[in-house]
Amino acid sequence: MDPRIEKHARIIVDYSTKVREGDNLLITYSDFGKPLAIEVYKLAASKGASPLIITTPTEAVRGYFEVTPERFLEVFPQHYYELVKASDVVVSIRGEETTRYLSTTEPEKISQRSRTTKPISDEYLEKRWCLTQYPSPSYAQEAEMSLHEYEDFTYSAVLRNWEQEAHAMKRLKDVLDAGKEVRIVGERTDLSLAIEGRVAVISDGTQNLPGGEVYTSPLEDSAQGEVYFDVPSVAYGKEVRDIWLRFEDGEIADSSAGKNEDLLKTMIETDSGSKRLGELGIGTNRGIDRYTRNILFDEKMAETIHLAIGRAFKNCKGVNESSIHWDMIKRLVPGEIRVDGHVIQKDGRFTWE
Amino acid sequence: MDPRIEKHARIIVDYSTKVREGDNLLITYSDFGKPLAIEVYKLAASKGASPLIITTPTEAVRGYFEVTPERFLEVFPQHYYELVKASDVVVSIRGEETTRYLSTTEPEKISQRSRTTKPISDEYLEKRWCLTQYPSPSYAQEAEMSLHEYEDFTYSAVLRNWEQEAHAMKRLKDVLDAGKEVRIVGERTDLSLAIEGRVAVISDGTQNLPGGEVYTSPLEDSAQGEVYFDVPSVAYGKEVRDIWLRFEDGEIADSSAGKNEDLLKTMIETDSGSKRLGELGIGTNRGIDRYTRNILFDEKMAETIHLAIGRAFKNCKGVNESSIHWDMIKRLVPGEIRVDGHVIQKDGRFTWE
Repeated sequence: MDPRIEKHARIIVDYSTKVREGDNLLITYSDFGKPLAIEVYKLAASKGASPLIITTPTEAVRGYFEVTPERFLEVFPQHYYELVKASDVVVSIRGEETTRYLSTTEPEKISQRSRTTKPISDEYLEKRWCLTQYPSPSYAQEAEMSLHEYEDFTYSAVLRNWEQEAHAMKRLKDVLDAGKEVRIVGERTDLSLAIEGRVAVISDGTQNLPGGEVYTSPLEDSAQGEVYFDVPSVAYGKEVRDIWLRFEDGEIADSSAGKNEDLLKTMIETDSGSKRLGELGIGTNRGIDRYTRNILFDEKMAETIHLAIGRAFKNCKGVNESSIHWDMIKRLVPGEIRVDGHVIQKDGRFTWE
Repeated sequence: MDPRIEKHARIIVDYSTKVREGDNLLITYSDFGKPLAIEVYKLAASKGASPLIITTPTEAVRGYFEVTPERFLEVFPQHYYELVKASDVVVSIRGEETTRYLSTTEPEKISQRSRTTKPISDEYLEKRWCLTQYPSPSYAQEAEMSLHEYEDFTYSAVLRNWEQEAHAMKRLKDVLDAGKEVRIVGERTDLSLAIEGRVAVISDGTQNLPGGEVYTSPLEDSAQGEVYFDVPSVAYGKEVRDIWLRFEDGEIADSSAGKNEDLLKTMIETDSGSKRLGELGIGTNRGIDRYTRNILFDEKMAETIHLAIGRAFKNCKGVNESSIHWDMIKRLVPGEIRVDGHVIQKDGRFTWE
């Protein structure tokens, strides 16, 4: 076995979820990820926790949507709910055999099912939870890498000294918490956002693993100026390239894209909240040096910022409501982040680094 | 996919457990068996049930026993209990990557853990449950077959017309229920057993799949005579061959074996109940034509009977108590089964066939 799998499990159990005696631990994976699930299982058991593994093969999920009559999409899986309710820790391992397994499933069915099972997802978030990645062939393919290279990539992002990373991110959080205005300057980009009264949150590897971003929710009326996202973005399985947005008083006044512009415009028009920003995130994970079409990694990439249109975060004191939350990523090399007029990052380096 | 997997799933869902709208269905497998689990999942979903798959990889179980400090063997997995409690149907699929995965684990640890999790196993038995087999390479190897041959073997045992099988077994049950004494005559064998007042039970494919036996618990003081088991028997992973037992007033008075005789004698001496019979079973499954070192199949083999020393069955009104229940199988070609002096089976054929 790749010894990095055991190191990954150690971070999940010891650091991210701090498994201890008596914990009821739930581990979930889809197709790949069994070796990591087993290592987490064993480590948790050695500490006196009770591990249990749920698997939801992607073919079971796809088949479910194919064969289930519409009226049964509202059937609530009570036993699953009871299981999650009685759990203390949930570890979710991503590793679908193909990331496109729902590409021919009607989106309305997926939404309907999500609404039915929302009490379960809500219950999940009440636990000590960790969402992480197993380096599967499908994700390597999305990343345009060999599996070997993708394993290296995954572990360089995940196997970090998270206490140290968290310490470094704290510096950025303090600056944002004390600041009133953020300005992003770069190629075809000069955007101002108000952040006064909002709270910056550190993604320190305890919930998202890899972590590596500091994010907040800007004031929903404040965005002013233009921004160009050089990193491709994905919505409903389709790639949207070269997104450019111009904001006036928080709202998108103009937009364009080099590929799938129609989809961009449709997304923006989803509801009133989807015309405004819900998130500003600043990536800090230097183990992530390229875009791999996986938002769990992409938004953490060092030397980038990302903005999401739509739903804001309650834990940042954000208020913007929307049924969507769509992340768009921009490299800031060359570029600058300024807070209240002071440059805090220039060409990808924080001034205190 | 092998189309027989879908047929197997249909028997499980439609016949064995009769899955219906609103059922909370739990599916479990260890290493192999995922394709069958997925088919059961989809079929159950199509009927408006809620399926959920638990996987317990054998390496997780082995590792659990290796790394878990002894005091933690008493930690109760409350979330697992709540899950089973809230389930209506449990389908367990066997298919370990090696059937010997616990061969170096201390048996006391396994017993201790079984005692801790007994409320969960008890809860299982309260449900509509089905225990079945996925034809994995490890079981093919035990059976001394190629995987291809073993798949044919498995499906010839499982994919039967179970209504018809049950009807045929009912005939045998009626004879046993009305009978007072059973006499087994064959090679080195002439054994009498009293069965008056006991209830014969049909294994009709609803719980064990394959089914195919009619069993009862003989009166514990009644066994008289000798019996020779030509089919090898397995205890604690060791094969015991050519077992011969002589009974006096229900108790084993003499015994021998051609291989691992010591183990036989030790097993017999386990406790007071292990010197007496707990079960007489008559195999009826004509899809099972050979011994494969898998008791789920072996005891159902047509043209055989089996006797178990130790624990009797409550549902047969049996009373013998023991911590063991060890099945030993005998081919009855040539041979006879007589009930109250009437031959009911001769050289493997029932007189009414």
